[in-house]
Amino acid sequence: MKINKPTLLLDEAICRRNIERMAMKADKSGVGFRPHFKTHRSAEVGNWFRDFGVRAITVSSVSMAAYFARHGWEDITIAFPVNILEINNINKLTSKIKLNLLVESTEAVHALGRHIRNPVGIFIEVDAGYHRTGIPWDDIPAISALVRHIRSYPLLMLKGLLTHSGNTYHAGGLTEIRSIYTETRDRLRWVTQTIPLPGNDQLAISIGDTPSCSVIERFEGVDEIRPGNFVFYDLMQYQLGASSLQEIALIMACPVIAVYPQRQEIVIYGGAVHFSRDYILTGDSDKNYGQPVIITENGWKFPEQPCYLASLSQEHGIIKYHPGLFDLFRRGMIIGVIPVHACLAVSCSGSMQTRDGRTLTIA
Amino acid sequence: MKINKPTLLLDEAICRRNIERMAMKADKSGVGFRPHFKTHRSAEVGNWFRDFGVRAITVSSVSMAAYFARHGWEDITIAFPVNILEINNINKLTSKIKLNLLVESTEAVHALGRHIRNPVGIFIEVDAGYHRTGIPWDDIPAISALVRHIRSYPLLMLKGLLTHSGNTYHAGGLTEIRSIYTETRDRLRWVTQTIPLPGNDQLAISIGDTPSCSVIERFEGVDEIRPGNFVFYDLMQYQLGASSLQEIALIMACPVIAVYPQRQEIVIYGGAVHFSRDYILTGDSDKNYGQPVIITENGWKFPEQPCYLASLSQEHGIIKYHPGLFDLFRRGMIIGVIPVHACLAVSCSGSMQTRDGRTLTIA
Repeated sequence: MKINKPTLLLDEAICRRNIERMAMKADKSGVGFRPHFKTHRSAEVGNWFRDFGVRAITVSSVSMAAYFARHGWEDITIAFPVNILEINNINKLTSKIKLNLLVESTEAVHALGRHIRNPVGIFIEVDAGYHRTGIPWDDIPAISALVRHIRSYPLLMLKGLLTHSGNTYHAGGLTEIRSIYTETRDRLRWVTQTIPLPGNDQLAISIGDTPSCSVIERFEGVDEIRPGNFVFYDLMQYQLGASSLQEIALIMACPVIAVYPQRQEIVIYGGAVHFSRDYILTGDSDKNYGQPVIITENGWKFPEQPCYLASLSQEHGIIKYHPGLFDLFRRGMIIGVIPVHACLAVSCSGSMQTRDGRTLTIA
Repeated sequence: MKINKPTLLLDEAICRRNIERMAMKADKSGVGFRPHFKTHRSAEVGNWFRDFGVRAITVSSVSMAAYFARHGWEDITIAFPVNILEINNINKLTSKIKLNLLVESTEAVHALGRHIRNPVGIFIEVDAGYHRTGIPWDDIPAISALVRHIRSYPLLMLKGLLTHSGNTYHAGGLTEIRSIYTETRDRLRWVTQTIPLPGNDQLAISIGDTPSCSVIERFEGVDEIRPGNFVFYDLMQYQLGASSLQEIALIMACPVIAVYPQRQEIVIYGGAVHFSRDYILTGDSDKNYGQPVIITENGWKFPEQPCYLASLSQEHGIIKYHPGLFDLFRRGMIIGVIPVHACLAVSCSGSMQTRDGRTLTIA
């Protein structure tokens, strides 16, 4: 393993444990496990899921669905409001695999109904409180109308209601994450019990943010979970309390290119083109773009004094450190950084390397 | 031109005008023009520079240098403190092209001096006030020592002093940009006049941020300019006053996938994986991740009422709009967005499309 520039380093054993734990939890709860593959975007990491019985997945774009379909996945939900401009590629996919799409408007249903050529599963995206996309959960007339419109097209097979409670990412702690989960689930169940149409009790409920799925032990009252980030976890999940340090499977290994003891700063080769630019706030409300870790023979560990990735240029990162770490950093060494947002670091990087030196390409 | 997912759209005519204007300004001032290619990262856009006499370029990594060397560029400065871990690739490059490297420490000079196999140009990186990398401009003993160490290695050919005044990106206006430029230049000139060594008057001064190079009309007292972002400009440069709307050459064209008139929001297919996550602040101190524009037959124009890209998920973007724009947005249309930071949007996207439909791949 010869790292000489910013390189995502993946601990396969931790990653497999994360997959196993979530798969077992879903199994114990008797709910479907349809992991979101947008975090790892990798055919090989995808294969690790098969060892735990996973056969159905979630992706966030038509092109990512096509990538995983090419790699043998035959049951895919695109968890993004259907982009009707990609209907040709959608039709190609539905001729080969079981595909599920999201709709959140009658216009989208009609456009899809008119242009789809093969049977396709449909989830209605419901906004249970996050306010990004979806029909507001309490707008029963709109949801009922959508159900009727979907059922009027023979190729649109209504599957159920789907939501993403991204508001758990802004939660103040585990209690708030749990209460967002409960509220989300109860709102979706209320919808299925309230809309005045036949067959509502057949509507599946699909939920799926990593904080909820990590913190909740038993998923009662839902039919399917779709977490994604848990496969690697990251600094944001750690800060939220959704993961421990031992569950973080991915770091960015970066060369130290300059050392400024007087400033108590080092400069790494590793910038916004590698990490993207998500941050969390330190206790002093400074921006923290990543947590430096020391790479060891068996993994990585926190330094004994505080330090954090305080700023990012395009290719540079500046790590501020406690004076007690004076002896730790040397020009030319490789330092690890836990990314704030693993999904974006993967998307920026284009590949990952396992700790034993295999290169994994990504979609 | 059939756009059905987030696509960087490049106006070649505007881009060529930006190149021409900067090349002519450098020419009139009698300074070298060594544009930074990290913004466009594209062999084809690089070729447009040749039409204006450009033969020497700047890049930000060894791999980017290798890419442009493969595309016929034979005089390249890597404006990033030398990463000695990449010495093998550096040696490959120096066997083929004229390469310049940056050093900011005696350790880096010795490591380079011991391992370099062919002559290589050396710039001393000076920190003229930005405090990212470089030797502090007023540390004459350190700079003098570095000059002596460099001159002790016959393959290290000392060229001069180089700085990047990234602090202009935080300037409050044109006056402050001008004063940062003047201060930077004066500090570097003072260094060349002050260090007690023979041949100092031969040391070149290389400067290079886009705000300074856009705002300053005559570059007196420097030898070379290295701006990069000016090739496209972006919302950050526009907000700084470094560019006009008519000089912005690049937008992200994004499908509108959902319309929420009650929230006065639309959702676009276009998120942090496409834009990265730089933002500027609106007048109300809200984060603005991009300026929506209406795509016209001949280019793009601002909407008649305010709107801005208010948040980004991985693939989604939410645009907030003034109620007066109620009739503008329709699901399935393509809306343009001026990125906050063009360099990162290009790096995220992996390709660009010209307005007449040609696809440009990037490094």
